[in-house]
Amino acid sequence: MIHNRDRLARTAAHEVALECIEAGIEAARPARAMRAALERSGSELRIEDTTLDLDAYDEIAVLGGGKAAAGMARVVEESLGDRLDEGVVVTNDPAETERIRVVEGSHPTPDEAGMEGAREELALAERASEDTLVLCVLSGGGSALLPAPVEGVGLGELQSLTEALLASGATIEEINAVRKHLSALKGGRLATTAAPATVVGLLVSDVVENDLGTIASGPIVPDESTHGDALTVLERYAIDPAPAIRTHLDSGAAGEQPETPDGEHPAFGRTQVHVLADGFTALEAARSTADDRGYTPVILSSRVEGEAREAAKTHAAIAEEARATGNPADSPVVFLSGGETTVTMRGDGRGGPNQEFVLSGTLTIDSDGIVLASVDTDGSDGASDAAGAIADRVTLDTGERAREALADNDAYSYLAGRGAVIETGPTGTNVNDLRVLVVDDSAR
Amino acid sequence: MIHNRDRLARTAAHEVALECIEAGIEAARPARAMRAALERSGSELRIEDTTLDLDAYDEIAVLGGGKAAAGMARVVEESLGDRLDEGVVVTNDPAETERIRVVEGSHPTPDEAGMEGAREELALAERASEDTLVLCVLSGGGSALLPAPVEGVGLGELQSLTEALLASGATIEEINAVRKHLSALKGGRLATTAAPATVVGLLVSDVVENDLGTIASGPIVPDESTHGDALTVLERYAIDPAPAIRTHLDSGAAGEQPETPDGEHPAFGRTQVHVLADGFTALEAARSTADDRGYTPVILSSRVEGEAREAAKTHAAIAEEARATGNPADSPVVFLSGGETTVTMRGDGRGGPNQEFVLSGTLTIDSDGIVLASVDTDGSDGASDAAGAIADRVTLDTGERAREALADNDAYSYLAGRGAVIETGPTGTNVNDLRVLVVDDSAR
Repeated sequence: MIHNRDRLARTAAHEVALECIEAGIEAARPARAMRAALERSGSELRIEDTTLDLDAYDEIAVLGGGKAAAGMARVVEESLGDRLDEGVVVTNDPAETERIRVVEGSHPTPDEAGMEGAREELALAERASEDTLVLCVLSGGGSALLPAPVEGVGLGELQSLTEALLASGATIEEINAVRKHLSALKGGRLATTAAPATVVGLLVSDVVENDLGTIASGPIVPDESTHGDALTVLERYAIDPAPAIRTHLDSGAAGEQPETPDGEHPAFGRTQVHVLADGFTALEAARSTADDRGYTPVILSSRVEGEAREAAKTHAAIAEEARATGNPADSPVVFLSGGETTVTMRGDGRGGPNQEFVLSGTLTIDSDGIVLASVDTDGSDGASDAAGAIADRVTLDTGERAREALADNDAYSYLAGRGAVIETGPTGTNVNDLRVLVVDDSAR
Repeated sequence: MIHNRDRLARTAAHEVALECIEAGIEAARPARAMRAALERSGSELRIEDTTLDLDAYDEIAVLGGGKAAAGMARVVEESLGDRLDEGVVVTNDPAETERIRVVEGSHPTPDEAGMEGAREELALAERASEDTLVLCVLSGGGSALLPAPVEGVGLGELQSLTEALLASGATIEEINAVRKHLSALKGGRLATTAAPATVVGLLVSDVVENDLGTIASGPIVPDESTHGDALTVLERYAIDPAPAIRTHLDSGAAGEQPETPDGEHPAFGRTQVHVLADGFTALEAARSTADDRGYTPVILSSRVEGEAREAAKTHAAIAEEARATGNPADSPVVFLSGGETTVTMRGDGRGGPNQEFVLSGTLTIDSDGIVLASVDTDGSDGASDAAGAIADRVTLDTGERAREALADNDAYSYLAGRGAVIETGPTGTNVNDLRVLVVDDSAR
């Protein structure tokens, strides 16, 4: 899956780092994670440690949305065969299906097709009875792919607002707090619409710490945020929405619109959610690979956030300590972490957080025998075609030009010039970043 | 040693964190580290795993300098008794001694008294023969406390240059590269002056990764830097030194002055160096305390550098992972790290790197049962009277004001107002920062 792997595998330590990355991405692919999690046996459908008796339902339907939704829907079809009655999912990455209609929508700005698909989903949910089983496949991108504006708000108004929010610097939680209060589907409303059906969510998470209300804006989980919170976000980022949007939020804040359903709503008593793949899935696969290769694997954290070049310094300090004193683990060791770091742009170069992580980390390290690799598991790191990078001290040469490149946010140009970027193309999954630090005294 | 300890020890986890900090600082006190490392038995003086036969020497002298030099010299006196012949050390923190003359010099700007002391030391080194044992006690501050300007350069010129360098943003390595080429004592020259004597260095390190050439500007270790390097540093920071200084460096770069001695110089064949206390000493004592209290102790690294608030995010992510998934270690666990983080000032508040570390780390954490503490082991964190801080989620209240304080570099004001700063006063040692993260589910 790493196109230029042969050229990158300069030492045994590089080889292990690349194998860990490939194993991590592979394990986090939605279809693979779905196949690993679903087990059908007669009328029983096992999902992780839960068992559903399919015979208890008159009708079984699939709903959902997200970049990986079509691939996920197809695995449900394979598993359920003719027990599946119907379904609709919206995605920007279609796949062939038989019984489930796949609607191609747009991301990150929602479009008409996505809105039609979302309406179909709500209509199907509306028809569901207590004898219906609704399997809901959700993945990253679902918020944009499933636009269902509340009455009085038009798609164009929602599009403009989405673009303003994405450009504002607001966090994904803040953006979704606004989206939930302008949607007939998000913030738990798909679940309350489907009530009294049984709703089972199958999720692939691109959200650090897997906040279920954030993945696809949480259509089937309770929501504690309010219209007032949505207004606060708009104020905080000085966003002036279309009048229809302001009218709706104002009337909601005045108690004239129902808030999103909270945990007390009876619909959630018949809803269960399974996260089938997330950053930890990738870390566990990488851990197992490192272990197989004779390295002590150490998962530091699945939830590292912050400025990439600074997170790199702490990671590098841990790797150097291992080499120097055997703390926190003896060489040969592979340190792993996930999460999502960010880049504060100061220069005008090309790069991304994973490449800056590798460049900064390698500049921090002044010993041989340590290889750093980091990728965005979706195959695209920031504003570059590369998935990430792999480097050690040898890659940097004197370090002077590397320092300049980092100062100019130009990690891509520098690392590509030194043959150190990792190329995968789109991987079909997204469980954020995967970082691998190999400490191996024998690999100098 | 923590004055306000009773008020800070709100939970068992706070208690353990404070005990780890006290144990770490205590173990790193120079006199204690010296006593632990020196063992006298008849004519044998054991230092760590080396044994010196005192009877092999006709004369034994003590030289040195640094903030802790007098206390260290006194332990050598205790150990050697009447076998010690004479000695001179320069310090800004004097202690009573019998045979060793203690000169009180100035830090961080060198003064006349320090220069006189340094001259006495060079004169004593000059008199040493191959039957002389020179014990050299060095600690942080030694560079400023032992000024020995080369011929043609005056103390006033050196003072101005030192002040310009300290204000320039140059690293301590860069500052010392200049100092070494203007000194008759630094950069290995005390050792070459004492040759053919046996020189044994006893060091307390305030330098991350213990670069022996950086501690007190390395008077008894080889130096690879050149007059040309010194000129490059002055150019990089746009410092225009006094004409006499420029003349000296220019003539050195032209090959008209000898460079500092490198590792080939025969003097270093009769020189050995022992680092008796450093950041790792504090970490090991803290580890042992955590272990005694029933926590799994994990030393992450003794060499963490970078922006304090960002290093905090990675540390917090590791602590949260431990609580959530048992990686990299199961709760109850104490994570420890050392090194020296920095603060980029953007606001105009009061604080220091350790307080910003605690504030940022606590803001990152959204679970109970995690306590963060961080101190500068010298008892003074940045521009505040506090040594550091200790906090958990409860400390922060809503977090909104905490976020504002961090944005304004005002961690001290906020944390002091919440009863969360650690007060020790001057501790008499300096082995950089000590960070303690206690993860304990039962301590919520």
